[in-house]
Amino acid sequence: MASKPFAIIAGVGPGTGASIARRFAKSYPIVVLARNPANYQPVVDEINSSGGQATGISADLSDSTGVRSAFEQIKSQFQGSSLAAAVFNSGGGFVRKPFLELTETEFSSGFEGQGKGAFNFAQNVLPLFPAESQGGLKYPPTLIFTGATASLKGSAQFASFAAGKFALRALAQSLAREFGPKGIHVSHVIIDGVIDIPRTKGWVFEKEDAKLDPEAIADSYWHLHTQPRTTFGFELDLRPYAERW
Amino acid sequence: MASKPFAIIAGVGPGTGASIARRFAKSYPIVVLARNPANYQPVVDEINSSGGQATGISADLSDSTGVRSAFEQIKSQFQGSSLAAAVFNSGGGFVRKPFLELTETEFSSGFEGQGKGAFNFAQNVLPLFPAESQGGLKYPPTLIFTGATASLKGSAQFASFAAGKFALRALAQSLAREFGPKGIHVSHVIIDGVIDIPRTKGWVFEKEDAKLDPEAIADSYWHLHTQPRTTFGFELDLRPYAERW
Amino acid sequence: MASKPFAIIAGVGPGTGASIARRFAKSYPIVVLARNPANYQPVVDEINSSGGQATGISADLSDSTGVRSAFEQIKSQFQGSSLAAAVFNSGGGFVRKPFLELTETEFSSGFEGQGKGAFNFAQNVLPLFPAESQGGLKYPPTLIFTGATASLKGSAQFASFAAGKFALRALAQSLAREFGPKGIHVSHVIIDGVIDIPRTKGWVFEKEDAKLDPEAIADSYWHLHTQPRTTFGFELDLRPYAERW
Amino acid sequence: MASKPFAIIAGVGPGTGASIARRFAKSYPIVVLARNPANYQPVVDEINSSGGQATGISADLSDSTGVRSAFEQIKSQFQGSSLAAAVFNSGGGFVRKPFLELTETEFSSGFEGQGKGAFNFAQNVLPLFPAESQGGLKYPPTLIFTGATASLKGSAQFASFAAGKFALRALAQSLAREFGPKGIHVSHVIIDGVIDIPRTKGWVFEKEDAKLDPEAIADSYWHLHTQPRTTFGFELDLRPYAERW
Repeated sequence: MASKPFAIIAGVGPGTGASIARRFAKSYPIVVLARNPANYQPVVDEINSSGGQATGISADLSDSTGVRSAFEQIKSQFQGSSLAAAVFNSGGGFVRKPFLELTETEFSSGFEGQGKGAFNFAQNVLPLFPAESQGGLKYPPTLIFTGATASLKGSAQFASFAAGKFALRALAQSLAREFGPKGIHVSHVIIDGVIDIPRTKGWVFEKEDAKLDPEAIADSYWHLHTQPRTTFGFELDLRPYAERW
Repeated sequence: MASKPFAIIAGVGPGTGASIARRFAKSYPIVVLARNPANYQPVVDEINSSGGQATGISADLSDSTGVRSAFEQIKSQFQGSSLAAAVFNSGGGFVRKPFLELTETEFSSGFEGQGKGAFNFAQNVLPLFPAESQGGLKYPPTLIFTGATASLKGSAQFASFAAGKFALRALAQSLAREFGPKGIHVSHVIIDGVIDIPRTKGWVFEKEDAKLDPEAIADSYWHLHTQPRTTFGFELDLRPYAERW
Repeated sequence: MASKPFAIIAGVGPGTGASIARRFAKSYPIVVLARNPANYQPVVDEINSSGGQATGISADLSDSTGVRSAFEQIKSQFQGSSLAAAVFNSGGGFVRKPFLELTETEFSSGFEGQGKGAFNFAQNVLPLFPAESQGGLKYPPTLIFTGATASLKGSAQFASFAAGKFALRALAQSLAREFGPKGIHVSHVIIDGVIDIPRTKGWVFEKEDAKLDPEAIADSYWHLHTQPRTTFGFELDLRPYAERW
Repeated sequence: MASKPFAIIAGVGPGTGASIARRFAKSYPIVVLARNPANYQPVVDEINSSGGQATGISADLSDSTGVRSAFEQIKSQFQGSSLAAAVFNSGGGFVRKPFLELTETEFSSGFEGQGKGAFNFAQNVLPLFPAESQGGLKYPPTLIFTGATASLKGSAQFASFAAGKFALRALAQSLAREFGPKGIHVSHVIIDGVIDIPRTKGWVFEKEDAKLDPEAIADSYWHLHTQPRTTFGFELDLRPYAERW
């Protein structure tokens, strides 16, 4: 029996990751990955109790052994199913500090979270996509990475995070160029602004709707997923109308 | 009497422009602009005969007087309606030639078609958007420009077209930064590859689906239009999975 | 009799152009072009009275007929000489205005001054470079264009100037890719900041040396000129240490 | 006793690093760092035997402890001297492989060599620059990083190296923005092509001089070093005239 295709969302907390999970759960059973069950459990429960199907698995993406074991669990749960989409939305590695106060570990944390985390995720995700052209999927298999302002600009005191986000973008480009011709859609979305999530509730701007809406971000990820392979979008930048850039 | 909001698509031939027109005509009465009725009449007829509402107007966008008169016609036809969306998809100005064989007129044609054409279009379009926040529109008022590979890269023998497309991108950025904070969504889509239209039917590639699908391009334009102002996408690059880039 | 190789500097006023002229006049007889003799005469006199050799010619670079006639004069004066270097430093086309107040002529002035001006300059300059590899010149024949912050960013209210500077960069890239393989060195220098020239004397910044030094800019142009063809620099961005970017 | 200012070049083998070392040794006593004495000893001997002053120290830049101990040695040798310039030219981390064959260690090696290596180098170098404006140096204190084609483009099968070079560029930008306003000149040079060094002797191209000349690269590094702080160049791309880009 061919099971339904499924999706995996990595980096799910109460913000964008949860919105992406909700959006993809409208069409697919989903797996959400986060370091801490406290991050993913609420959205997992919400999806399961409203007619969707969600599984949460704890994993630190920068730890290859842990990621592999999480994917063993996924493969055994979804045996016979095709992976339809995977989103890397991990927030790891944000540090802001004068450069000379930065420790080597702090500097590397940007790459650990963004570069190595995305590497481990991609290595485990790519073999789960169907080998043949779309393999019965409605849309081309899709791998989306979440970027940030720091993907394009290394600001003062942001060396760690920018190094991680630049490295993530390099990885996304390299994968798009290697796997695009195989029919896999690799995208990189640049989130340029503050997202309206619980953690930023108290951040007040001149205009009250000056923060990115995580549901709208999720809609754009879904849109990218639905593009046919003749017309793949690689990079999209999203920002609030009130943002200076 | 409040009429329905409408949309304007400039640069409509049998290819991408027609697909964009069809897509926006699902939700709005539309006006299509092209230099030559032969270009827009088929899609106008098709839309009108299948339940939509379309008007074709002949205009050379690089001629400000002609554009103004076309817009007088539009304003009188859609009096009381709000403009919901406008797309600049003009193909004008493509010349490929060794630089020393290029005449001044040929070199300038890239800017005439892309830069000045887009300027004239934007100047007439922007005042038709509702002054107040969205003014009753379902989605934020949207102005989308069509870019190309040459928007980012000045290739050998492409000085004219690249100069035009670079200038168009400069204009799009400038408008996004000036009108974004006023709630108007300005976007720039980079079409990086050959589009599957009548003119390119005979172009054969190793992979048979190696050309961009104009319907899928139109879907992405529509998606950009539906984004809320908290989450505006500015730039999206679209290319076939088989494209080298 | 083989005469000395010479250089042409276009866009010479009391600022950067004069410094570039002075720098190249240390090695070559030079021709300076500007719309108005009042702009070039002081530096022409200064160079001629201090042991160099300079000729000033009035020309509006956006007027192809005028440019051609200026180059007839140049060709007759430097018959038998090779052109060693040419610099396009024209400042034309700067307009800052709310977009809806911009006239078509104002918008086009950016392209007229930067795009068409550079086109006319390049078309007349390129045939004067030696056809054979360096043709006895000490350094590869060199054509340098002056860019600005607006070459990379279309800011609000800068549509005209940014369109012109983007178009100029497209032209420079296209020429570098067409003429580089023929041994001609085409470069584009991005001046990102205020230059310390008579016109900006009154502009006060927190740090007193926060403006670009035109002599130092000229040194960088000269450095680019001296690069061998194995090692051509295409783009260099210059800014004051105190500049935010 | 005030000693002469000195320079440090990291990543010195028989190629570009040696040329940079030779160039800076014309004006400063220099220290060269490399993993292996076999790499730096020839150029150290050459400089010392031809009237210059060079010291070689073995260090693996991705190992912070080793770097610190190398710098203890440098500080004790150059006590009382100011550091005038430092160049990070490390080649570490180049791997080319299908993504799914890449091990985590191989993927991370790009960041280890380029990102972390540059971090360790910068952290030790920056405190050696004079605290006060130029501190008696002839030119502003300068820190230059060597980039590559992969600094701007993540090609297929280049995920590791591109991630490292993107991260390095992020770091360079961040340092330029933090330390530029303090008068320290931070630059990033993009070497886009094959360099003519012993390792590439056998690589034959259609045009015989189609490889970058390391001496010319070194001249451009030196030129960047001599720029006054009013006129800092941040990024310069260098490529052979025959290169396609």
